Amino acid sequence: VHEPHLQDSFTSLSVDTESLQRQIEELSTFSDSPAPSVTRVLYSEKDVSARRYIKNLMAHSGLAVKEDAVGNIFGRWDGYEPELAPVSTGSHIDAIPYSGKYDGVIGVLGAIEAINVLKRSGFKPKRSLEVILFTSEEPTRFGISCLGSRLLAGSQELAELLKTTVDGQNISFPDAARFAGYENAKDLSSVFLPKGSYSAFIELHIEQGPILEEEAIPIGVVTAIAAPASIKVDFEGNGGHAGAVLMPMRNDAGLAAAELALAVEKHVLDSGSIDTVGTVGILELHPGAINSIPSKAHLEIDTRDINEARRNNVIEKIHNSALNICKKRNVKLSEFKIVNQDPPALSDDSIVKATESACQELNLSYRKMISRAYHDSLFMARISPMGMIFIPCYKGYSHKPEEFAAPKDIANGVRVLALTLAKLSLS
Amino acid sequence: VHEPHLQDSFTSLSVDTESLQRQIEELSTFSDSPAPSVTRVLYSEKDVSARRYIKNLMAHSGLAVKEDAVGNIFGRWDGYEPELAPVSTGSHIDAIPYSGKYDGVIGVLGAIEAINVLKRSGFKPKRSLEVILFTSEEPTRFGISCLGSRLLAGSQELAELLKTTVDGQNISFPDAARFAGYENAKDLSSVFLPKGSYSAFIELHIEQGPILEEEAIPIGVVTAIAAPASIKVDFEGNGGHAGAVLMPMRNDAGLAAAELALAVEKHVLDSGSIDTVGTVGILELHPGAINSIPSKAHLEIDTRDINEARRNNVIEKIHNSALNICKKRNVKLSEFKIVNQDPPALSDDSIVKATESACQELNLSYRKMISRAYHDSLFMARISPMGMIFIPCYKGYSHKPEEFAAPKDIANGVRVLALTLAKLSLS
Ligand SMILES: [Mn+2]
Ligand SMILES: [Mn+2]
Ligand SMILES: [Mn+2]
Ligand SMILES: [Mn+2]
Repeated sequence: VHEPHLQDSFTSLSVDTESLQRQIEELSTFSDSPAPSVTRVLYSEKDVSARRYIKNLMAHSGLAVKEDAVGNIFGRWDGYEPELAPVSTGSHIDAIPYSGKYDGVIGVLGAIEAINVLKRSGFKPKRSLEVILFTSEEPTRFGISCLGSRLLAGSQELAELLKTTVDGQNISFPDAARFAGYENAKDLSSVFLPKGSYSAFIELHIEQGPILEEEAIPIGVVTAIAAPASIKVDFEGNGGHAGAVLMPMRNDAGLAAAELALAVEKHVLDSGSIDTVGTVGILELHPGAINSIPSKAHLEIDTRDINEARRNNVIEKIHNSALNICKKRNVKLSEFKIVNQDPPALSDDSIVKATESACQELNLSYRKMISRAYHDSLFMARISPMGMIFIPCYKGYSHKPEEFAAPKDIANGVRVLALTLAKLSLS
Repeated sequence: VHEPHLQDSFTSLSVDTESLQRQIEELSTFSDSPAPSVTRVLYSEKDVSARRYIKNLMAHSGLAVKEDAVGNIFGRWDGYEPELAPVSTGSHIDAIPYSGKYDGVIGVLGAIEAINVLKRSGFKPKRSLEVILFTSEEPTRFGISCLGSRLLAGSQELAELLKTTVDGQNISFPDAARFAGYENAKDLSSVFLPKGSYSAFIELHIEQGPILEEEAIPIGVVTAIAAPASIKVDFEGNGGHAGAVLMPMRNDAGLAAAELALAVEKHVLDSGSIDTVGTVGILELHPGAINSIPSKAHLEIDTRDINEARRNNVIEKIHNSALNICKKRNVKLSEFKIVNQDPPALSDDSIVKATESACQELNLSYRKMISRAYHDSLFMARISPMGMIFIPCYKGYSHKPEEFAAPKDIANGVRVLALTLAKLSLS
């Protein structure tokens, strides 16, 4: 009975693109690297400032703001049946070194603007609507991706691990959290949310791939999120002086790492599927001097697939290559650690359908698609029905300064999000 | 006519091994990494403290101490014919990250102790004797090896370059020098010494190779220093998200770097000579995040040979490989810079002979050998007859914490240095 009203007012109202664009620019200035790149690392001064900026925006939109012990931020608009499980939406604002302005940000600023759109339309939510800013979707500082959403989803293992986790400067997780104003980051079980806390969770995000742009389709409705895995590898050799140690005497940990990086590429290509990807994004040599043979090498490997078994097969092959390289080069494999090996997640049918309806009612074409990047949605799916909305981005670029989404595409995404939230709120 | 007297008193006196060992330990505590490793980078606080320590030792040994504009430190014992060109000896005390206690240090502390030995023996120098501490033999901070000795040898090119050289933190060379108390590091021509400033230069150093230890020979008399070259390489690709960019769309700068590192090894081995070496000691990825395809990779390559043409041929092949990798992987070779490509240096016959005589008179067996590592001696050879004395070190280890030379071997080296200095002083 509410539907017709909703639809009428909704098509008559539009997104405040000007404000939203200004907010995207303002948020991008909280960065530790020069524009146009963005670097915003968990619990840094810039991250704390950016969080304050978001809390102010939430308050300005009339949302009731609260934070949990690790800094997941919740902005709630109470529904007229507040005892029902709320509908939630959100994303992250942390940015890996030298990345862009849109990854995650669109799903936070866009969600707040979706609330504004609904408010301006005169819409009254039945289920409460909640905007969530997730802490540390990116693994930059502590090597753990989706830290906030994993904890929300009740990862006891992670809560334990974080008590003793340190960053590259040997700063512990609780100390880093304290620096950012989160004093209670020692007892992380307070962060866990029981299954059923939300009736739905939906995240708006740039595609981070080229498909929507190439096909000129404004909206992607995500049906599944690819299964990511990450691996840390350490090789050790004897090192020594680059002039004095003759070639047959060497066991160069850096060359072992170089071989493994190329082996990762080979095994991924050998999978035979376009959907298998693998990346060595971190490769560090110790001591890292031009005249010193590397005595240690550290690699971090990311591999993903929409097929979990195929991805795990690649991991197995990478491990075998690491062992063979050690034998051949007489270096030691001092670590081969699968840091995470998450299963893929499927979107909930009811959310997919609500999003499709929203697109149809807004006269926006869409396609169903798979998310090859992972998101906080992957973990929210453990405690809530989940869905995602993708918008096109320039050449599929992400995680670099050239990342870009057009204002019109962002506005379309916000409209679809707003209408989907409205539908889910009333259901 | 002085010779018989010299020899008699000399064999009767010995090195103060206890003091010398204590000094080696004390100097090793001026370090920015935990013991047993040593990290002492040019113009750091620890470097400044270590320099003060050496100047105090020099003064304590009755040497007249002075410093030039870049912090080369000279401790002089005036001879009785002070108008003659002095005989000089010395080495460096800077240490690359996570290295050891002996590289360079033995040639500075050992030289001061050689002066003490001569003083206690009652020896009076004819030519003045001078101990030199060279600034930044290691290229750690500004990427330039043998910075102090290159300048002493009159490198106008380097003096110009240093006006605009910055370190990894974007601190300029003159600013860094000012921090260490060297206010005049803008006009570096004051550092140049004319050819003929010394009648001889001789450096005591650990072998940094396994030969003397394996053959149980206490002294190596160096006849030539291998020709070093260093190269900086930068690859650039498009980067992107490690989950979203499919494999055929990638141009991964990190994999280009991995291939080049392996190509360096291949070309060096293909030279067919045991004397050709090549090392990738630095390999850095940008942005350096596990979920980001490397958009930039930086390598620093060191290659050396006792045969200059053969080494230059390896450099040529490395360059061709870099170009081919770029073509194959569709990455850009944004830099391929040969930072230095020095010619080898031959020891002076008269110094070799004086060192051989000293060994014979001290009843120490010796062998002639080539230095595969380079040293300040390589550049002092441009303005002075040059020679080097090597002592054995544990397994040939250097540039790592396990670097070690036995007290007895150090004492032998100091005795040979002292007697050689005495002979050269009288000649
Ligand atoms: Mn991201
Ligand atoms: Mn994201
Ligand atoms: Mn060295
Ligand atoms: Mn040295």
